[in-house]
Amino acid sequence: MVNVIILGQGFVGSIFASGLEKIKAGEIEPYGVPLRDELQIKIKDINIVGSYDVDVNKVGKSVYDVAKHYDNNVPESLKDIEVKKGVHLNSLKNLPIKAEGLEDKMSLEDAINHLIDEWKEAKAEVFINVCTTEAFKTFNSREELEKAIKENNKERLTATQFYAYAISRYAKEVGGACFINAIPTLIANDPTYVELAKESKMVIFGDDGATGATPLTADLLAHLFQRNRYVLSIAQFNIGGNTDFLALTDVDRNKSKESTKSSIVEDILGYNAPHFIKPTGYLEPLGDKKFISLHIEYISFNGARDELIVNGRINDSPALAGLLVDLSRLGKIALDRKEYGTVYEVNAFYMKNPGPKEAKNIPRIIAYEKMRMWAGLKSIWL
Amino acid sequence: MVNVIILGQGFVGSIFASGLEKIKAGEIEPYGVPLRDELQIKIKDINIVGSYDVDVNKVGKSVYDVAKHYDNNVPESLKDIEVKKGVHLNSLKNLPIKAEGLEDKMSLEDAINHLIDEWKEAKAEVFINVCTTEAFKTFNSREELEKAIKENNKERLTATQFYAYAISRYAKEVGGACFINAIPTLIANDPTYVELAKESKMVIFGDDGATGATPLTADLLAHLFQRNRYVLSIAQFNIGGNTDFLALTDVDRNKSKESTKSSIVEDILGYNAPHFIKPTGYLEPLGDKKFISLHIEYISFNGARDELIVNGRINDSPALAGLLVDLSRLGKIALDRKEYGTVYEVNAFYMKNPGPKEAKNIPRIIAYEKMRMWAGLKSIWL
Amino acid sequence: MVNVIILGQGFVGSIFASGLEKIKAGEIEPYGVPLRDELQIKIKDINIVGSYDVDVNKVGKSVYDVAKHYDNNVPESLKDIEVKKGVHLNSLKNLPIKAEGLEDKMSLEDAINHLIDEWKEAKAEVFINVCTTEAFKTFNSREELEKAIKENNKERLTATQFYAYAISRYAKEVGGACFINAIPTLIANDPTYVELAKESKMVIFGDDGATGATPLTADLLAHLFQRNRYVLSIAQFNIGGNTDFLALTDVDRNKSKESTKSSIVEDILGYNAPHFIKPTGYLEPLGDKKFISLHIEYISFNGARDELIVNGRINDSPALAGLLVDLSRLGKIALDRKEYGTVYEVNAFYMKNPGPKEAKNIPRIIAYEKMRMWAGLKSIWL
Amino acid sequence: MVNVIILGQGFVGSIFASGLEKIKAGEIEPYGVPLRDELQIKIKDINIVGSYDVDVNKVGKSVYDVAKHYDNNVPESLKDIEVKKGVHLNSLKNLPIKAEGLEDKMSLEDAINHLIDEWKEAKAEVFINVCTTEAFKTFNSREELEKAIKENNKERLTATQFYAYAISRYAKEVGGACFINAIPTLIANDPTYVELAKESKMVIFGDDGATGATPLTADLLAHLFQRNRYVLSIAQFNIGGNTDFLALTDVDRNKSKESTKSSIVEDILGYNAPHFIKPTGYLEPLGDKKFISLHIEYISFNGARDELIVNGRINDSPALAGLLVDLSRLGKIALDRKEYGTVYEVNAFYMKNPGPKEAKNIPRIIAYEKMRMWAGLKSIWL
Repeated sequence: MVNVIILGQGFVGSIFASGLEKIKAGEIEPYGVPLRDELQIKIKDINIVGSYDVDVNKVGKSVYDVAKHYDNNVPESLKDIEVKKGVHLNSLKNLPIKAEGLEDKMSLEDAINHLIDEWKEAKAEVFINVCTTEAFKTFNSREELEKAIKENNKERLTATQFYAYAISRYAKEVGGACFINAIPTLIANDPTYVELAKESKMVIFGDDGATGATPLTADLLAHLFQRNRYVLSIAQFNIGGNTDFLALTDVDRNKSKESTKSSIVEDILGYNAPHFIKPTGYLEPLGDKKFISLHIEYISFNGARDELIVNGRINDSPALAGLLVDLSRLGKIALDRKEYGTVYEVNAFYMKNPGPKEAKNIPRIIAYEKMRMWAGLKSIWL
Repeated sequence: MVNVIILGQGFVGSIFASGLEKIKAGEIEPYGVPLRDELQIKIKDINIVGSYDVDVNKVGKSVYDVAKHYDNNVPESLKDIEVKKGVHLNSLKNLPIKAEGLEDKMSLEDAINHLIDEWKEAKAEVFINVCTTEAFKTFNSREELEKAIKENNKERLTATQFYAYAISRYAKEVGGACFINAIPTLIANDPTYVELAKESKMVIFGDDGATGATPLTADLLAHLFQRNRYVLSIAQFNIGGNTDFLALTDVDRNKSKESTKSSIVEDILGYNAPHFIKPTGYLEPLGDKKFISLHIEYISFNGARDELIVNGRINDSPALAGLLVDLSRLGKIALDRKEYGTVYEVNAFYMKNPGPKEAKNIPRIIAYEKMRMWAGLKSIWL
Repeated sequence: MVNVIILGQGFVGSIFASGLEKIKAGEIEPYGVPLRDELQIKIKDINIVGSYDVDVNKVGKSVYDVAKHYDNNVPESLKDIEVKKGVHLNSLKNLPIKAEGLEDKMSLEDAINHLIDEWKEAKAEVFINVCTTEAFKTFNSREELEKAIKENNKERLTATQFYAYAISRYAKEVGGACFINAIPTLIANDPTYVELAKESKMVIFGDDGATGATPLTADLLAHLFQRNRYVLSIAQFNIGGNTDFLALTDVDRNKSKESTKSSIVEDILGYNAPHFIKPTGYLEPLGDKKFISLHIEYISFNGARDELIVNGRINDSPALAGLLVDLSRLGKIALDRKEYGTVYEVNAFYMKNPGPKEAKNIPRIIAYEKMRMWAGLKSIWL
Repeated sequence: MVNVIILGQGFVGSIFASGLEKIKAGEIEPYGVPLRDELQIKIKDINIVGSYDVDVNKVGKSVYDVAKHYDNNVPESLKDIEVKKGVHLNSLKNLPIKAEGLEDKMSLEDAINHLIDEWKEAKAEVFINVCTTEAFKTFNSREELEKAIKENNKERLTATQFYAYAISRYAKEVGGACFINAIPTLIANDPTYVELAKESKMVIFGDDGATGATPLTADLLAHLFQRNRYVLSIAQFNIGGNTDFLALTDVDRNKSKESTKSSIVEDILGYNAPHFIKPTGYLEPLGDKKFISLHIEYISFNGARDELIVNGRINDSPALAGLLVDLSRLGKIALDRKEYGTVYEVNAFYMKNPGPKEAKNIPRIIAYEKMRMWAGLKSIWL
């Protein structure tokens, strides 16, 4: 059994909850879940025990009522879970969402204690962070982080940074908890947080769930690298119509996304091939089904020039939600094994920007096999 | 050092010869050569010591004069190698090529002896088979094969089958030779030939060099498999303007190609997703730069339907020619190690239809690493 | 008012019936209907008064019951129309459909009289031919056609050829009828039929409804022609999963399709640019939503080489069904004006292979304007 | 005969000069020139009589020496034309180009007189403006424009605005001149300039030469409009590696481009379908051959949803240069006819943002025919 809290009851959080319950009820196949039902912890062992958001239209409603806006077939079992009030800090600046957070009524320190009490009651084990992409600044030291909390410095922290810290406190008290950071804010890549995690019996997976064009690009580049094809240029466009793309029209947020996406080029190829890899635009009617376009030109044998063009229509939220079904269970496994800090073997497959900081991207096809072995499963092809 | 004979001085054979000499002269980088210059046998150690063809416009000319039709910058060093007369048997039926083979003047048995004499003089070690795609029938037994030779049954054998047999005889006499079968005719996948190879000190690599859309599809399918995305359909089109595409307008030849291309689906996914994977057409102005189009539709988490479309313009002959630079050297390594028969580790990366018969396709990204290790190199990411 | 008979209650016929009734009921917008509701004959004036098929699973059922297999929201108003037995002749050879036709029980001459009686009762005015693509032979003369009927030569005629002849007899008796040939069999392009039509007060529109990649290619080629870009090659692939694509796996049927598709190249460009334009394959899971892929390479100013690649996912049957909503009304207009024979202005926009025989393809964007003017509407941009 | 001055000896200006001379010498075909050699003024009648730039590496050199950097086969006839010093004003701000303009040494008023003298000597008739894309502000009145000149207000004017004004003065003196504005700065769309032109015997063609994805999108949208397919969304990406794309990384310049590109949507469809149409990025290795990606989703009959994806590799400068061969000759024709002001029939085909201000985009396929008729040629298909 694994008890899961959703932080951010938006598109991804809702598809995760809805899809999970349908799989548990045997209504649909576990497509999009990389490890299927191969783990000892089964998909039916995942319990959603809590949900947090700050949108005034969501707080106080059931997950069922919220998820209805994102999925037209939501299981009734989600009627029992209430969306509780979390924190927003600066995370929704400039977005057309009316937000209210715990910090509007109490200090950050009090908010931590308030949340810890709720989490204890819920017997929470794994926290899935699927807040909106944030503009953020990493912390240079534990002291700076704790100072920001103590001084109630709401401008310094993002929601993700706050939650990760609060969960470290919770983990320390209850003897273990896992924080899965599915957005670009650096947590698994921030040594301050990884250090904190080790001391607090916390497991961190992160950063930025590897969906869509980026892991595909990683495997395509590996494919080219292995044939010694010299990549001349890479252009990758992404456009979508969900809140995440809307958030990325904000220049600062976009930068945080850009860096997690473009690090793959040098990591895989061994040289920094000229590239343009950015979330490109917001187009409302596309909804959650983004359009991606990728162009790669390279030199082959005898100086020949080849080109590849990849286009895709990809449902953004389900791609990430399916990974969360694994990550929840792998989080519990790491806790059982007391592998505190962060786990590269997991991050390397599931994350765009795998922590810890010094770690590199590797081809996903290989990362999958290594992750399986970490999880106690047999590799398929090694 | 490794002495190489080219069987079929067409587009691939010419680009191989021309590109190889340019790399040896330091004029171009070894792009398109998967193992770069990492092997103990260096690229400059490869000597082309002979070439065979049956086109009356090629036989008797130098490789330089032939290669000029395929490449506009051919090194002068190829002026010293003469294109000698080989066999055609049924391999050029219906093609607009005027062919003359040894078999037109002598029996097959005599042709074998004639060739063995020439090969001895050339001190040939590795034979690269880049004849035109053939319509063929496998042999059920060694007896049937040898009977066809003895009875001079020119209808029963293709050029490839004949050459492979002749080389086994040569290998036996001189104590080792390697046959690299870069076309779809089943040799490494024909137990009769693999058995023959083991007894004759012959190494076979094959079948059908893995270029273009097929290995890419293998890696894309592995990418989807690892995320448990359920593939609904795969459509793959190929169109080009070189002789190989012209040959494939012939229905029987096309079938031999089709089967080597579509086996990857079930091998990688574990189920036979509905697919249409065929060489599709001939369009002369495309020349050697084929156009490929690939459409894949799949189910992701929570029943979402996604689509990928891959288009490419790919120079066909250089893609294969670059692999031959490795295969020539790996052939010599296998001979040095006396690994007679066929070598799956090599075939799994370099071949569309990796022998032996019972072997399966695996993702190329993994096959590359295993092949490196077989070759005595360190893996990159394992 | 216009009374319409559907010949062939398959995918197109069913979507036509279902969509039309929904538009009439105000449930959906008339998207996909080129002339919207601009004509004097309104969309609500179209009455489906009969339907014919030969599939034993359809004959005797209501159009509602048949259409349910193709559309998941069929209006109840279609419950009142029965699918009657038509003729199949050779048209379903090799397809996995159990067929029974009038010709199995009576002579062709008797079948004609039987149908004319039914059509009189229905007060039929316009006949929409949406049978499966046929392999066919045109008639060299009126005599040959009438001899085949008289001698009950079922091998010589296709269903389309039979229906067109039967309708000419009906038109002569009742004083006018329109035959819309939406499939490749040459009718509007067969002088024998056009002559027959003129004498019989019949209007023919045809041949082969212009949907999907072909009219788009026509406009793209016009776009290139107008910039004097020299087209080097055109490759166009189509793959789908409906019965029409299944039918086209049959080589003879495919040929009839190929010629209607590729005539556009020379008609528009003025030279026969090398092209490969063929229905390419059948892939069942694609269903009615075909995948198209188009590659064009051309020379621009100063010898520069450019490339365009067009990919599409296009619902095949709705694209044609929408055109039939116009064609039904335009057929009535032609009848009112006594424009017997065939009408190039209509064919040039709506048909892949616009009749009469000597007529050419023109850019669709211009054909639309001319067709509007023929129909008594103002042009938009001329 | 027509005497042409090039304003901006960059990529487009160089390809125009080089390609034109090659056509005149009979070395290449006039591909990319929409009107071929059909006009009474032949291609060989075009004389380049002058060239202006501000790059210190170009001024004082011959067009031949400059063009060599853009084309590897430049005719020697261009050795006789010297690149003279023009003005830059704010047009090269933030670009990595060292510029020197006439305005650095003299007042704007003096620069005008200086240029007029040079132009008189050259007997200039037609001026082609192919400067780099500028950030600009239109003028509200003739007074404001003349005041900026008089007061030597170099911050208020762009190079294009200055040249257009200077040419109006030249036209008035010599009795006629034509200004072809191939960049986005509003001139033909600025009533102040059009009014000025009428009074000064000046012809203006503009604005922003219609190359690449925009005119293609116009024709695709017309194609959809004519079938009443309801467009849900349009995403169009462009990325290239020439100076123009580098200039567009500047936010203000990009805005000027964006508005000329996106006006086509409502003009053609009649409603403002949600769209993202922007120059997207700069990627140096792409050079002049840009990559475009276009995605359109629409509703067809019976509510069906279809998608089109267009990808292209298009040589940017030749596409525009070919149009200039026509525009030079059409400019002379307009002068001969004394059609001062701007000519919509010409602009509608050749320009992204056809002036005058109140004019709309129409499908290019129709615009071509109307332009032919304006030019005294027969239409092809009307």
